[in-house]
Parts: sequence; structure tokens; C-alpha cells
Amino acid sequence: MSRQFPSDSVGLVHPRTVHFDHPLQLSSGETLTTYDIVYETYGELNPARSNAVLICHALSGNHHAAGYHDPDEKKPGWWDNMVGPGKVIDTDRFHVVSCNNIGGCHGSTGPATVNPDTGIPYGPDFPIVTVQDWVASQAQLADFLGIEQWAAVVGGSLGGMQAMQWAIDFPDRIRNAVLIAAAPKLTAQNIAFNEVARQAICSDPGFHEGRYYETQSEPWRGLRLARMLGHITYLSDDLMSEKFGRDLREGKINFDYGVEFQVESYLRYQADSFAGSFDANTYLLMTKALDYFDPAAATGGDLSAALKDVKADFLVISFTSDWRFAPYRSREIVRALHDNDLNVSYAEVESHQGHDAFLLKIPQYLDVFTAYMDRVAASC
Amino acid sequence: MSRQFPSDSVGLVHPRTVHFDHPLQLSSGETLTTYDIVYETYGELNPARSNAVLICHALSGNHHAAGYHDPDEKKPGWWDNMVGPGKVIDTDRFHVVSCNNIGGCHGSTGPATVNPDTGIPYGPDFPIVTVQDWVASQAQLADFLGIEQWAAVVGGSLGGMQAMQWAIDFPDRIRNAVLIAAAPKLTAQNIAFNEVARQAICSDPGFHEGRYYETQSEPWRGLRLARMLGHITYLSDDLMSEKFGRDLREGKINFDYGVEFQVESYLRYQADSFAGSFDANTYLLMTKALDYFDPAAATGGDLSAALKDVKADFLVISFTSDWRFAPYRSREIVRALHDNDLNVSYAEVESHQGHDAFLLKIPQYLDVFTAYMDRVAASC
Repeated sequence: MSRQFPSDSVGLVHPRTVHFDHPLQLSSGETLTTYDIVYETYGELNPARSNAVLICHALSGNHHAAGYHDPDEKKPGWWDNMVGPGKVIDTDRFHVVSCNNIGGCHGSTGPATVNPDTGIPYGPDFPIVTVQDWVASQAQLADFLGIEQWAAVVGGSLGGMQAMQWAIDFPDRIRNAVLIAAAPKLTAQNIAFNEVARQAICSDPGFHEGRYYETQSEPWRGLRLARMLGHITYLSDDLMSEKFGRDLREGKINFDYGVEFQVESYLRYQADSFAGSFDANTYLLMTKALDYFDPAAATGGDLSAALKDVKADFLVISFTSDWRFAPYRSREIVRALHDNDLNVSYAEVESHQGHDAFLLKIPQYLDVFTAYMDRVAASC
Repeated sequence: MSRQFPSDSVGLVHPRTVHFDHPLQLSSGETLTTYDIVYETYGELNPARSNAVLICHALSGNHHAAGYHDPDEKKPGWWDNMVGPGKVIDTDRFHVVSCNNIGGCHGSTGPATVNPDTGIPYGPDFPIVTVQDWVASQAQLADFLGIEQWAAVVGGSLGGMQAMQWAIDFPDRIRNAVLIAAAPKLTAQNIAFNEVARQAICSDPGFHEGRYYETQSEPWRGLRLARMLGHITYLSDDLMSEKFGRDLREGKINFDYGVEFQVESYLRYQADSFAGSFDANTYLLMTKALDYFDPAAATGGDLSAALKDVKADFLVISFTSDWRFAPYRSREIVRALHDNDLNVSYAEVESHQGHDAFLLKIPQYLDVFTAYMDRVAASC
């Protein structure tokens, strides 16, 4: 008997891969001569080709945003809360495209891919890519799919940075940009957390300077630490207190270094699960793309000037308890957009879930996001 | 030519060690049969023995709070800003005692000490000690020094927790407790950061389950990571932005994993310096003492009830930008003290330096602290 998926699920989905054999010039000056991008689509492209929505993923995300890869898959795609028939990003009305970014570890060309020039995996030779490079490669994907202009480019966190870059680099190819829990650039503290994560990976003896694919070892210890640390910054202090408080796993203190507090158990579980399914070189790359993102750098730190050619309308959403990219970071973006007389909707959503709130079904968030996407759909 | 120390310095100081050969019963149920405590004193004990002040150190501190160990020492003790002739803790008026806590790595009995029962260093067999255990051992030291009652017990961060525990456990032996940048217990987020630090150390192949003293390796990678992470939580986002911003070390992005941003360089330097002078097993112990501290646990979470026998007067100080132990944590303590009709002075100091502000000469902080210590001195 075949499985019944919920009626608001896109159901079974099949990733596809497109191979590009024209070179991609990267921000670093290096060139990727050929590359693959793996992607999924949900919903039909309309005859006018005007209803396409691009979803950009964050640090640990991938192309699998919604639905199920096989009938037995327990967890749907990472943004299934938002994407499906009748959902916020309504696949009855939109043709949704979601791809794994280059440098990733879920099918698109990245450090674990065999380098055609050497016959072994790129490893540390894979060039460091930037948000701009991702947007350039996503534009190639759009060309391939016959999508001249996105109805919207949407993303949370690092995904929101890509949506912003789209509006800057391709003002004629994007009608709406949705930036959720994003920031115009990282602070020194943000960079510091990323640096500790990178040091955890690079100092792991299993890292072998990034050439661990050819060895029996992997830098899983470092990747575990990086994920634990990241995870703390994704949650608010309040949410952690509510979820775990000072609850003891066995109801008593054991005076040893095993798991004592529930929060320790949770972190270890998250870390183990992540380290088993993610590539350390990709983690390094993603944190660098975050650190480097700073569209205002080209205009001497003037974000308004960096946005002067932008034409898209914007929805910007932040969450009150997000201390990774706090609301004031979103307001910086909103102010710079206003300086350019652009149409901007901004919502600061009351929530206690921290940065990860962008993944969750929070009523005020859903309301604002739905209302905006309804307007986008109406104009397709 | 002998070096001239500043006139407000205690100058050259000589640590002393006292050996205790009566057993110390620990919270864990284990017993330390014999132990040493290393300590320093500054200023003279008055004939009435009423002017003694105990300084309790925080996670990475030690007994060397003020002055210099030799004429060539570049940096004075860790709280030299506060302790000296004419300073806040005025050694012309107070007899100041500062000791290294047991479990430490600066001379008091700890994991690196040879276990008399086995002839090898304790390593992981050194029992996990608590704030209560430290206070009990400090009481032994007070007995040895002939100090029946402290004019004040003073500490920042974990040191403030010890001052609080003194007031609870020995209400007749402490007239004033000064708690700076402290908290009545750790939150889940605080514990989570400690857990990542512990995992960094314990997962380091050089850790050898804590028995690295007998090997050629040391868990310095893990200790470096622990310190980097700790350091981020000691500074505020604002201070990091002011100190480093997004400044690049070489003025340009290099697209590699070397040091690029100034904040990365700073963190690596701090970590290297710390890992070369601190013991990983001690770091583990200290974080556990922090996690376990929760005086209200014995009274079902009711902090006011936990403080019911306290007699001391209190000065409680917090710093607005401290996100490790934010002002609201200090206010919890203040409320519980008020519930018991105790004399409490509370100051929330405006500062952008984060948790580490307690080490710095911030005018409002100095004013409040000095005024209080003047009152303490007047009553000696």
C-alpha cells in the first residue's frame, strides 16, 4: 500500500541535476570550468513563465526544501512548513525552484566532487565561493529552466543574503525579494563564532588539511563541535530555558563528564546527526561565504549606495529573540531600501525561538509572509 | 638597578603554600585526604583581625590577584586594577587574601598533582569540586590564617558565586559579600557553551581520557577552542565591533583559511597564550562547578528560602552589556536578598565591555565599588 502524504504536501519529489560546461568566473578570481547543480521544483510554471519562485538555502540547507524523496522518508524537506499546496509559498500558484548551492555537499559540485583536472576530490582545492558566485550560478540555472525573471527570490539567514544579492546583481530578473532573519553583513562576533567552528574542523587531526576523502579518517569531531556551537547561536536563551531549563537527564547530578543536563544530551544528539550527513569542507566554505558577504563594501560601506540599481519590492522579516541576526540588522537593510524609495514591507515578529524561528510555523510570521506572497501571486 | 613599581602597586609579592592533612569532605561524596592551597596576601592584618578581605577567582583565575612575582614580570596580577595601596580594595586598610582554588592548576592541589595513593597525577581521578567545596576549603585557609570573620568576600563571575556561597554557608564569618557580574545559577545556554568547551577538550585525541600528563601529547587543540569560545562570551558584540569591526588583517580578502579578519587574529592569539599556561582537566572542573552552582536547588528552586540564614550586607554589581550573566541575573539575586530584609546595594553599570567589564577600570563601577569598600573599611 502506497503512503498517503498530507494534502498540503508536494508529496514525492525527484531531484534533478543539470551539468554546465561553460566556465563560471568566481569572485576569488578562480574559475570553475564545469559544474553540476542539483535542484528540485514544485508546482507548474505558467505559460507566461511569470510565477517562478527561487528558494535559497542557508548554511546547512540543500535543494530538498519540500516533500519527500521516497515513500518511507520520515522527515520532509527543510522548509516543508512553508512550501506546498495552499501553504505560504503555494505550489498551486507558484513554480518553486530550490537548488543546492555550489560548494555544497548534497549533489551540486563541491569539495567532495572529483576534480576533472586531477581525478581526485577537490578537497581544499575547491575555490572559496561567495554569495555573488551562488547568485551567478543560480542565474545560469534560471537560464537553463527558461526563467527570465523570478516572481520572487526567497530565503532565511544566508538564504536572505542571496535574495538581497539577486536584487543587486540582476535588478531586471527579480520582482520581489524576501529576506528573513538576515543581515547586511556579519559583525565581529558573528565572524568570531564562525572562526571557532573553522578552527574546530581544521585542528581536528582527521582533517588532513582538507584531504580526508582519501584517508580512513574524517574530521567528525571538529564538525560536531562546529554544529553544537552553531546550534547554540540558532536558539534563544529563552527557548533553551523553556525547552531544557536545568533539567537533569537522570534526575540527579553524577559528578562526572557524561551527559547530565538535558541540554547536553540535545546538543550531542544534534551534533552526531549533523556530522554524519554533512561535509566538513562544505561547512568551512559556507562560513566563509557568510563572513565575506558585505554588499556595501564596494560602495565604501554605504549600503544605500550599494542598492541604488535595485528595482525589486521587498519583504523583510526579523524575529525579536534572534540574537544571531537581531532585528536591528534587518532594520539596517530596511533603511537602506527606503533611502532608495523602494517598496518595502517590514515585520518584526514577536517570538522566543531565536534565529531558527524562520523555519517554524509562527502565526504572526505566517500571516505576514502569506499576505505578501498572495500579492506576489496576484501579479504573476 | 631594581625596578620601580607604581606607587599604587603592592609591588613584589610571594605566594605561600599551606598543606592541610585533615580530610576535606566534598559535595560529590568523595574525600580529599590531604591538599595544598597556594595563596597570596597584600596589606597587614590589623590587631583586631577584622580587616581581612577574601578575593575569589573566576574560571581561569588564580591566587595572583595583584602585584608582581618578580621584578621582570610584565603583567601584574589579574585584578591589579582593583587591589593595591589607595585602590578600590585598599591594601593600606585591608588585609587581602587571594588563593588558588582546589582543582586549580597554579599550585593548589588539582588534577596535575601527584595522587599520594597512586604515585601518578590524579588526572581524571581528581574529584569534581563545587563552589561549596571551594568555600569549605577557603574556610580552612581562614582558620589557618587566624581569620575568624571576613570583613568582605569579593568576587566577579564564578568568584561572585563563591562570595554568595560564603554568605549562605558561614553567615557568622562574613560581614559583606560583593558579587560582581554573577548569577544565581547558569541558564541552559550557559551550560550549553560550557558543554561545547568540554566536548572540545574531551574529544581531542591528545586528551587520553584525562591521563595526558603521562603522555607526550596534550589536549591543547581542545583547550584553545574552549578558550576562543569562552572569550566570545566574555566580550559584548558592541565591544568586538568597536575593537575589530570587519577590519581585515592585510586590508584585503585572501580567499583562504588563514587569518583574514582582525578578530580571528585576536582570538587565535588569546587561545594560544591561554592553552600554553592552563590545564585542560582544570578547565573541565571549573566549568562543572559553574554548571552545578545552584544554591536554590536545596530549597526547591526558591532562592529567597536558600538565603534565609544569611546575615551579610551585599553589594551586587552588573554590567549592561554582559550577555553571559546579564543584569537580570543579578536582579534575581537582589530580589531574593530583599525578600530576606538584608542590606543590599545594587548597581547596574552602563558599559559596552561585556562580562569582562568586572576586570576593568570603568569610572561608574570604580565609584560604586570604592564607596562600598570605604564603608567596609570604616567598620573594620
